[in-house]
Amino acid sequence: MNIPKGDLDLLAVGETLVDLISEEEVESLREAYTFRKYQGGSPANIAVNVVKLGGTAAIVSKTGIGNFGQFLKAELQRAGVMTDYLVMDHLVHTTVIFISRTEGTPDFEAFRAGDYKLEPDEVSEEAVQQAKVIHASTFALSRRPCRDAVEKAFQLGRKHGKIISLDPNYSRQIWPNYREARSVLERMLGYATITKPSLDDAGRIFGPGEDPETYVRRFHEMGPPVVVLTMGADGIFLSNEGKTTYVPARPVEVVDATGAGDSFWAGFLTALLDGNSLKDCVLFAREIVEQKLTTVGPLPDTMDREEVYARIRAA
Amino acid sequence: MNIPKGDLDLLAVGETLVDLISEEEVESLREAYTFRKYQGGSPANIAVNVVKLGGTAAIVSKTGIGNFGQFLKAELQRAGVMTDYLVMDHLVHTTVIFISRTEGTPDFEAFRAGDYKLEPDEVSEEAVQQAKVIHASTFALSRRPCRDAVEKAFQLGRKHGKIISLDPNYSRQIWPNYREARSVLERMLGYATITKPSLDDAGRIFGPGEDPETYVRRFHEMGPPVVVLTMGADGIFLSNEGKTTYVPARPVEVVDATGAGDSFWAGFLTALLDGNSLKDCVLFAREIVEQKLTTVGPLPDTMDREEVYARIRAA
Repeated sequence: MNIPKGDLDLLAVGETLVDLISEEEVESLREAYTFRKYQGGSPANIAVNVVKLGGTAAIVSKTGIGNFGQFLKAELQRAGVMTDYLVMDHLVHTTVIFISRTEGTPDFEAFRAGDYKLEPDEVSEEAVQQAKVIHASTFALSRRPCRDAVEKAFQLGRKHGKIISLDPNYSRQIWPNYREARSVLERMLGYATITKPSLDDAGRIFGPGEDPETYVRRFHEMGPPVVVLTMGADGIFLSNEGKTTYVPARPVEVVDATGAGDSFWAGFLTALLDGNSLKDCVLFAREIVEQKLTTVGPLPDTMDREEVYARIRAA
Repeated sequence: MNIPKGDLDLLAVGETLVDLISEEEVESLREAYTFRKYQGGSPANIAVNVVKLGGTAAIVSKTGIGNFGQFLKAELQRAGVMTDYLVMDHLVHTTVIFISRTEGTPDFEAFRAGDYKLEPDEVSEEAVQQAKVIHASTFALSRRPCRDAVEKAFQLGRKHGKIISLDPNYSRQIWPNYREARSVLERMLGYATITKPSLDDAGRIFGPGEDPETYVRRFHEMGPPVVVLTMGADGIFLSNEGKTTYVPARPVEVVDATGAGDSFWAGFLTALLDGNSLKDCVLFAREIVEQKLTTVGPLPDTMDREEVYARIRAA
């Protein structure tokens, strides 16, 4: 893949929000009484992880100006993410999501506010021009005007020859209208250079029970020449315009799977911008996600990229 | 005051919501990281306290159907508050308010959602007919359609000869348009039989620095024949159509002032429905608020009304 020019490795467009995660380990939020606040939002987390790996990243998001918005800005700045394109709007609340802490599938309740009120006018062409990769989430596509803001970022990204990355998934709770979701995802994947569904994501979008090859083909049909299908313990299925490579997962003792997908993708994009082959990008990403899975809490603040490459070469 | 007939002592109209109070004792929410959920909302709390004092109470409020709405319903039922008129709507979120735990003035951020979406159609005439007192908060008046729902409840209350109680206050954060607030309060106080401002409330509504007599007169001019002006450590100023009585506060060691106003008002209304003189209602309310101020957390689940009367008679 040709690596575009730009001072910024990643421009993440979409939700920066506050995760309120229950202190109690519970299946249902009803059983939860205390909640701890964390900086959250998948695109913001990918930006944070890119910086941890030594890259540069900025986010285009909207928050309120109250304590939660200020908290997010401070956290992102502490992490080294550029916040010049973070829009703090006094007319909105910062989006918060209550999440149950559990080893199973978390229960959640999203109070969506500022995140989806990002306007196309608030996506600057200058920001897109600076970046090598424009990345967005499906969450950000689920409501307008944020959907239109992402589309503008993707259109500008195409115009300037950037890598366009989309994290596809579907949740009825976030996006009740499935037909609309399907149609918007199809249109947005039309801009994408690269997409990273998990097997679960693919099942929720296209219906469950298909084999990985079928899912990959269906993503290709929507546009992106590169599809990276992650299958948890069953490994990673990589397809470059239909030329497929399978990379197995290695057994690790999982202690905390929170943010695994965002860690994987930050690793993949970092290796991609370093000029590696797509397969080596997957190997690099696998190292990063393994580190995440075996660590309680977020990835360490800094990670030595060369050390990761050394481990891959030694393997 | 004539006591209306009805099986229900209190019908509280307005917000039932989730208070998320910081575990850390902090001035600003920015410094708070963990939050604990509590059933909240002033009208709901007054209903709970009326039941604790042996009375009967119901609330007319709107919540979502998710975990927070279910939590509120369960808490109110546990407290013995009738929830037949609680509207749980799948189209809304339950309102939540983040509040800093502090000995000073709490910092707060309200995520208003379901509470203000209560519709006039959701206030049943049957509920009003059953009740002796119809009580509402200013918070509930700050947005439509809830404002219209409260107005309908007050109109029905007048039609059926009920006692109409309004808790007047003003917060720019809750109700940015001061002129509108002033005009709506004036109209709503026109329905009220009885109102309970604090000196701070009066200052925020009419401007600070006036003496208690002036504030009381201005409330009377808006409609209610009975005004109970609470002045914290400076006592209580009671006015029945301009005939004033002053009741001093007694020195107590304040360990938790949260919910003091709602405790006072539940006490006052309980004594009123027992047929006491207005002055004795204030004395009863003073006993209840003293118990609140000297107790960490909410009032005990049950309180012996006769014991409180005995204390008043002994004094």
